Amino acid sequence: MMKKELLSILEKISSGQLTPDEALNQIVHHPYQEAANGLNLDLHRGMRTGISEVVFGQGKSIDQLHSAVETLARDKNPVLVTKVGQDNGLDLEKRFPGGRYWDVPGVFILNKQLDLSHPWPGTGRILIISAGGADLPVALEALTTCLFFDQQAGLISDVGVAGLHRLFPHLDTLSRAEILIVVAGMEGALPSVVAGLCDKPVVAVPTSVGYGTNFSGVTPLLAMLTSCAPGISVVNIDNGFGAACFAVKVCCTHE
Amino acid sequence: MMKKELLSILEKISSGQLTPDEALNQIVHHPYQEAANGLNLDLHRGMRTGISEVVFGQGKSIDQLHSAVETLARDKNPVLVTKVGQDNGLDLEKRFPGGRYWDVPGVFILNKQLDLSHPWPGTGRILIISAGGADLPVALEALTTCLFFDQQAGLISDVGVAGLHRLFPHLDTLSRAEILIVVAGMEGALPSVVAGLCDKPVVAVPTSVGYGTNFSGVTPLLAMLTSCAPGISVVNIDNGFGAACFAVKVCCTHE
Amino acid sequence: MMKKELLSILEKISSGQLTPDEALNQIVHHPYQEAANGLNLDLHRGMRTGISEVVFGQGKSIDQLHSAVETLARDKNPVLVTKVGQDNGLDLEKRFPGGRYWDVPGVFILNKQLDLSHPWPGTGRILIISAGGADLPVALEALTTCLFFDQQAGLISDVGVAGLHRLFPHLDTLSRAEILIVVAGMEGALPSVVAGLCDKPVVAVPTSVGYGTNFSGVTPLLAMLTSCAPGISVVNIDNGFGAACFAVKVCCTHE
Amino acid sequence: MMKKELLSILEKISSGQLTPDEALNQIVHHPYQEAANGLNLDLHRGMRTGISEVVFGQGKSIDQLHSAVETLARDKNPVLVTKVGQDNGLDLEKRFPGGRYWDVPGVFILNKQLDLSHPWPGTGRILIISAGGADLPVALEALTTCLFFDQQAGLISDVGVAGLHRLFPHLDTLSRAEILIVVAGMEGALPSVVAGLCDKPVVAVPTSVGYGTNFSGVTPLLAMLTSCAPGISVVNIDNGFGAACFAVKVCCTHE
Amino acid sequence: MMKKELLSILEKISSGQLTPDEALNQIVHHPYQEAANGLNLDLHRGMRTGISEVVFGQGKSIDQLHSAVETLARDKNPVLVTKVGQDNGLDLEKRFPGGRYWDVPGVFILNKQLDLSHPWPGTGRILIISAGGADLPVALEALTTCLFFDQQAGLISDVGVAGLHRLFPHLDTLSRAEILIVVAGMEGALPSVVAGLCDKPVVAVPTSVGYGTNFSGVTPLLAMLTSCAPGISVVNIDNGFGAACFAVKVCCTHE
Amino acid sequence: MMKKELLSILEKISSGQLTPDEALNQIVHHPYQEAANGLNLDLHRGMRTGISEVVFGQGKSIDQLHSAVETLARDKNPVLVTKVGQDNGLDLEKRFPGGRYWDVPGVFILNKQLDLSHPWPGTGRILIISAGGADLPVALEALTTCLFFDQQAGLISDVGVAGLHRLFPHLDTLSRAEILIVVAGMEGALPSVVAGLCDKPVVAVPTSVGYGTNFSGVTPLLAMLTSCAPGISVVNIDNGFGAACFAVKVCCTHE
Amino acid sequence: MMKKELLSILEKISSGQLTPDEALNQIVHHPYQEAANGLNLDLHRGMRTGISEVVFGQGKSIDQLHSAVETLARDKNPVLVTKVGQDNGLDLEKRFPGGRYWDVPGVFILNKQLDLSHPWPGTGRILIISAGGADLPVALEALTTCLFFDQQAGLISDVGVAGLHRLFPHLDTLSRAEILIVVAGMEGALPSVVAGLCDKPVVAVPTSVGYGTNFSGVTPLLAMLTSCAPGISVVNIDNGFGAACFAVKVCCTHE
Amino acid sequence: MMKKELLSILEKISSGQLTPDEALNQIVHHPYQEAANGLNLDLHRGMRTGISEVVFGQGKSIDQLHSAVETLARDKNPVLVTKVGQDNGLDLEKRFPGGRYWDVPGVFILNKQLDLSHPWPGTGRILIISAGGADLPVALEALTTCLFFDQQAGLISDVGVAGLHRLFPHLDTLSRAEILIVVAGMEGALPSVVAGLCDKPVVAVPTSVGYGTNFSGVTPLLAMLTSCAPGISVVNIDNGFGAACFAVKVCCTHE
Repeated sequence: MMKKELLSILEKISSGQLTPDEALNQIVHHPYQEAANGLNLDLHRGMRTGISEVVFGQGKSIDQLHSAVETLARDKNPVLVTKVGQDNGLDLEKRFPGGRYWDVPGVFILNKQLDLSHPWPGTGRILIISAGGADLPVALEALTTCLFFDQQAGLISDVGVAGLHRLFPHLDTLSRAEILIVVAGMEGALPSVVAGLCDKPVVAVPTSVGYGTNFSGVTPLLAMLTSCAPGISVVNIDNGFGAACFAVKVCCTHE
Repeated sequence: MMKKELLSILEKISSGQLTPDEALNQIVHHPYQEAANGLNLDLHRGMRTGISEVVFGQGKSIDQLHSAVETLARDKNPVLVTKVGQDNGLDLEKRFPGGRYWDVPGVFILNKQLDLSHPWPGTGRILIISAGGADLPVALEALTTCLFFDQQAGLISDVGVAGLHRLFPHLDTLSRAEILIVVAGMEGALPSVVAGLCDKPVVAVPTSVGYGTNFSGVTPLLAMLTSCAPGISVVNIDNGFGAACFAVKVCCTHE
Repeated sequence: MMKKELLSILEKISSGQLTPDEALNQIVHHPYQEAANGLNLDLHRGMRTGISEVVFGQGKSIDQLHSAVETLARDKNPVLVTKVGQDNGLDLEKRFPGGRYWDVPGVFILNKQLDLSHPWPGTGRILIISAGGADLPVALEALTTCLFFDQQAGLISDVGVAGLHRLFPHLDTLSRAEILIVVAGMEGALPSVVAGLCDKPVVAVPTSVGYGTNFSGVTPLLAMLTSCAPGISVVNIDNGFGAACFAVKVCCTHE
Repeated sequence: MMKKELLSILEKISSGQLTPDEALNQIVHHPYQEAANGLNLDLHRGMRTGISEVVFGQGKSIDQLHSAVETLARDKNPVLVTKVGQDNGLDLEKRFPGGRYWDVPGVFILNKQLDLSHPWPGTGRILIISAGGADLPVALEALTTCLFFDQQAGLISDVGVAGLHRLFPHLDTLSRAEILIVVAGMEGALPSVVAGLCDKPVVAVPTSVGYGTNFSGVTPLLAMLTSCAPGISVVNIDNGFGAACFAVKVCCTHE
Repeated sequence: MMKKELLSILEKISSGQLTPDEALNQIVHHPYQEAANGLNLDLHRGMRTGISEVVFGQGKSIDQLHSAVETLARDKNPVLVTKVGQDNGLDLEKRFPGGRYWDVPGVFILNKQLDLSHPWPGTGRILIISAGGADLPVALEALTTCLFFDQQAGLISDVGVAGLHRLFPHLDTLSRAEILIVVAGMEGALPSVVAGLCDKPVVAVPTSVGYGTNFSGVTPLLAMLTSCAPGISVVNIDNGFGAACFAVKVCCTHE
Repeated sequence: MMKKELLSILEKISSGQLTPDEALNQIVHHPYQEAANGLNLDLHRGMRTGISEVVFGQGKSIDQLHSAVETLARDKNPVLVTKVGQDNGLDLEKRFPGGRYWDVPGVFILNKQLDLSHPWPGTGRILIISAGGADLPVALEALTTCLFFDQQAGLISDVGVAGLHRLFPHLDTLSRAEILIVVAGMEGALPSVVAGLCDKPVVAVPTSVGYGTNFSGVTPLLAMLTSCAPGISVVNIDNGFGAACFAVKVCCTHE
Repeated sequence: MMKKELLSILEKISSGQLTPDEALNQIVHHPYQEAANGLNLDLHRGMRTGISEVVFGQGKSIDQLHSAVETLARDKNPVLVTKVGQDNGLDLEKRFPGGRYWDVPGVFILNKQLDLSHPWPGTGRILIISAGGADLPVALEALTTCLFFDQQAGLISDVGVAGLHRLFPHLDTLSRAEILIVVAGMEGALPSVVAGLCDKPVVAVPTSVGYGTNFSGVTPLLAMLTSCAPGISVVNIDNGFGAACFAVKVCCTHE
Repeated sequence: MMKKELLSILEKISSGQLTPDEALNQIVHHPYQEAANGLNLDLHRGMRTGISEVVFGQGKSIDQLHSAVETLARDKNPVLVTKVGQDNGLDLEKRFPGGRYWDVPGVFILNKQLDLSHPWPGTGRILIISAGGADLPVALEALTTCLFFDQQAGLISDVGVAGLHRLFPHLDTLSRAEILIVVAGMEGALPSVVAGLCDKPVVAVPTSVGYGTNFSGVTPLLAMLTSCAPGISVVNIDNGFGAACFAVKVCCTHE
């Protein structure tokens, strides 16, 4: 609660528009909705943080998903569910007829029309770059999130460092974006190379793609944090959603 | 090298302004300066990446520092050296009379006037927030870097989660910044709290402040990466410089 | 064996009430029950440590569970089994008709009536606070354990740091409890915030909720141990039972 | 700020005792003291959390220590500094003549008379038990903290599991305490043994005593968290102060 | 090949009993049996190392198990297969009618009669002590191995440190053994306690019993290696077979 | 693109054979093939790096495998797919009738005749040595890769350090190879022993064979990197393919 | 306290030789000596565990060393101090004139004549084998400990796996010992090789010799635990003392 | 010992040229030199493994260095000591007047003239490429080792991925070498990029250059092992010597 709002409430007491008890109630009133099962859905999060509540689907039962989607979808609000497996995704499509499940990024979207089929947009204020084909699910989760929050976003896929020449034709596109999201598994070298070649801020997303010493994404995570190229920041492993939220906040701030 | 520049060179061959050999020379010519000791200082990095070359002082001998500063300082270019200990800092002040060493952030600056003494500016496009007094060196390194690259930046220090009421008076200031840099050691909880309270992108900097299970900053690093609040990205431990570079790139992109 | 009891036995020898051999037998007699399969159930543990033997269900076969419950349930003793999956839980309900399985906390209870359905009590000498909906199973395991050992306990759920305003309405309730159990996954920041806001001892329980750098609960565990707020102690990952045992011992000591 | 206090302020507006602006000022007024060097000492922490601000001496320069002690010592408030090395300790004794430095626990105390010399009290509401001679500094830090906060506390030292018979004579004393702090390095087995033998809550403190696979205290930390005996909670490595704060909060709650 | 045997061969050349080529053949002749599938079974290992080849069943297909057992069982040699799951165990019983599968230790034995049913022998030159009921499979694997190699061995189970009084009645038995194998999961404290109470060498076996910070047995492993009691050595996690091999070698050496 | 090729293009502009735009197009033209699903198959990799594109089968769906094999197999190019499980392998055999799946190494090969059945060649420019039977799949993956790229390669299996005498008869063969690939799990000691006995470069491949402290291959990996014998380099865990690629490059360089 | 001793005390009560209080006193009397500084030296440890108390010198101040040695040396008891640096070692020689400091193993010995100079005995019931010259300090600590406890022990040094031929001439000697202690740093492969070549039990001691991925001895520790050769058990890193204690216990048991 | 040599000895017995005892002596005779202090210098290693014994200077006392150099330098043999600090290096120069210490690579060389001053050769059969200026010591250690073993070797320094354009002018040189050694710290991305651009085998050397999540070289080590570019193998952190030994063996094999 900002000082301005607080002052306004206090002035209403002073002017008699509110009793102290009513004011107290407003001040401590919690802007969230308690659901039947003890979960509090944070409906005002969008107002407070710029990113409205999104359902993280991994590890949730289909009942929990139903209940969460139903609550958030009231008043035709758009709903995004991330990290949804195929079974739950198809079930959600049945349960909420207007919605659509996309299996590569593993997202379910309701009350909003997004087209996530190939070819994806190749340019945007936010530009997502993925190293290998196996990083595509995470890159598409990022793209989905950007589009869901109404940002212009593009995706250039499969331009890893083992064949750097595939990156070079895109350097101009990179330099026209406002912020880059670079998704890479294996040794995670792509963000360093990109940040060394252009002047845009890079949000790096390590993926769990690889085996052995990839350690489920720990190695690219550490490599990205240790990058010799300045201007890189990093999010959790496979967290395309988080990288996109960060980029969305940057773009919203500068609209 | 962008496609536009390349086309321009090719057209000069076509028009006879350049011979093929001269053109070849220009294309492969490397825009860096080879120093006497085998180090290549990357003088054109600023043009290419928006962040000109900065000297990372940690682990360098005083001779290496002299040589690096001297090369970069030609033509009165401003020079920034980070992570400089007291002995080397004072030595640099003697060797380069116009320069100044600031001991808390451990930076040496030449050919640019910056005032890093307390009180620091409290607002800015980039706002730096530090959790505890011991995190101040890293927070000041970030502030120095922002100011060195001519960005408006402010610093609010010592507002850790063990006394959250110290943060609340600053919420309005936070909401007026464009990007936040949040510096915290110990368990690294401050970025989550800040990102949950306001709608700006947060670059989190874990510090090695703490002992035992702080593990020299690994614990706050992991905590920040795992944050439950969306819109946070993270840099290396104690890397105030890197967080600032990222924020500078964001601001430059939107000037 | 306390000195007092030992002295009493020795005096009986002196007075001829016991022969040396009989006394020897009493001194080394082991107060536990050897079962058919080589397991020793520690029936006197309650007398010795204040916490009677509870069955840890994870990794046990249904046969092992049957046998353990049967032995402990003699003489209508109340029995608690923790970390029971759905299949085994339903099987136990069939096998021991008076008992009841609760699936969210994964507990089976026999010879004692506990109501674990929502809404849970909101106040108590022991107050359990959980950060996110996904932490609920662990929080309910703690609540169950407290109630099983006849302590007044309450539960406030889903008040994580990404929406701190949800916590503030409960601060008075917190300050009226005697000990707090704070359950959190992800980055585990909630215990620091709670301990910074009120003067009660906090037992922190990290959960394995999260992905990537959550590392199955290691990150919140480390964060809690490294907390900048004094007055926090920590138990094993997902160990709602252990935190409750600790709190029960504290309350029993001060009855 | 509790609801009660807030209501009182709001009623003063309603009754005209405060203008809205004055009230706003009181509500957001931060009860801490900004020092010359950008550190905020949290003078009201004692009121809020039961544990007043204590100076953590490790890694602080002697100048920082002077400044912190001076600020906290105003109005003859008692001051505790922990983890102080010999050089800084003796320096503080010179600078603040009434104060005293104790070298084994590494603490400096001003404006309060504590006797930390051997023999220490052997009983108390809080009873500290240390495994080996090398764990003594951490155990004494805990004792100091308890006494500084006016709690009855005792210390039984050097009763490790490699010679368990040394523990048995003290079992009665243990059973008369209200909470136990058990300090152990090496493999950290003592808390399990103590918690298996008596019915008091045990706060376990791992120490960095040992070599090789002790891993600077990580091994006893993990062992304590994994204990097979219920009723143990754990604090950071070498954190005698934290364990004592926890125990003090437990005792204060039940005074 | 020992010097003595070599000398004997050389003398046979000198005396004309062997030609140089025949001798060369004997010297480099490899005493192992190449199987059809490229596996070399080391039939002479028993002669060389005192422990004949045993089949490690984990991760082997049923075909690989058949082939290995068949080769080793020639000439009615006794065969031991360890870490066999239930499916493969029952299959082996069918395939090799004289053999027997025991499911708790997960071993299959052919051409040798061993009785592994409860109650187990309680004394022996080698005495195995297990901390909890869940450690029983590993303890029984050790018992099986000792008996398979014709050593007198006993097993005392379920005497963990959370109820140390269960250990005390057995101290005399311990002192009559020649070597102790102590099996423990969780925090792995039992070997320290045993080694502190009696004068026999202790081979400690950490088990993967536990959860969270047990880290699949790493915590008890580290705790055992860091023990404050001298005279303990440690084997791999869950390696009851390895501990038994070591103890068998000790006993064979002193027969 | 080499300088020579670039100069040639530039000369064509100069001589009017190419317009600047045509030249630009050639320079930035990317020699890869964009597939329908956003994957770029790198068809020119063989020309550039000596190793043509191979399909890494692990984690790919059968649809992805079909698509990748189909694209690479155009013009009867030989195709190698590694780390293919049995189900996908048999499916590929059906889909691409000329191809063959080998289940031990888990490879599928199309448009090339390789015989991977036992016995394998025992000598070669590249000689592969495997420690135990369980390391065979990785060793065979290496052998397959060498043969696929037309190198002479041999395989000596099951000569681990627990029975070193099995290695000695092969020392002459080792000394006639040009490069050795040594595959070992467990503690990974074989490469040290081999490198200490002969003068050939050793590429060590750790495998995930083992349990407990093998840590899925991390222990042999670290042991190989820390070897006391000079002349060893190491590849990722289970990476028989990578070791073979390295050896193939060495041999190709010296053809 | 064994049952036999306890019975004897009880019979004395029965016969009137002891009052119950006297008996109680004897039973709970702790057979250790409380020193002035709160340390309990465990003087009866030798009787109880076969290994009398030894002073672990690392991390102890010279005052603590003086006090410990003085207490243990009463009645001309032999005293061993391990892990003593040069400064403290020479100081102890001055303070206790009959004693001697040996700098390579870092031990100080009083009231016992041991000759630790080269050449060391080459045979013994206990045979110590060290891999490299840098492992010598740990190997000599083991040798010293064996000799201090009056066991026949020998040392063969510098026979690492990078030159295995150096080991072969000693195989006969190995086969005549009763127990082997194998000391190795780097990748720690020697114990596997030794255990594969002879039939004696092997106690492996990893050392912190090496750099990088040796990780201060963790790599050889893990390698030894994961050894493919049965009959190896392992002690803590650099713990020559512990390995020797184990071997001494084995030998004492079989005297 | 090869079969051929053995046969020759056996034939001498047969022909009476050797007695069995003399032959035995030759067979088991160990071709190493036992020094006064128990170290065995392996003088025949060069014959056996292609790499003669080199002194690893780190952690050795100046006395140990003197003794090792003296022994190896007999008969004017060239001697190389690696990882020598400045103090010991200058001392060795005094003690062995013909020798020379080079401080950047930290090597001392005797009985061989090598010029390690800048500029270094830029081409060679072995080409060393280093990422940053701080990696130079490790790169020069590799160069020294190659030259010491009489291989043609060159060094291209300071061409890291943050400024990839610095690498491109050297691509032709790379393609003319036979084997590449790529040295990089920080995130270790350079080997992937190099291996993706050219067809030579790459030996990657991670360095401990960096801070925080570089983890003393672990991060680049893991990144290199996990590289997406085939044809890379890796050596220990900072192990320029080991990489060079490997490359020397490759080149010697193909001379």
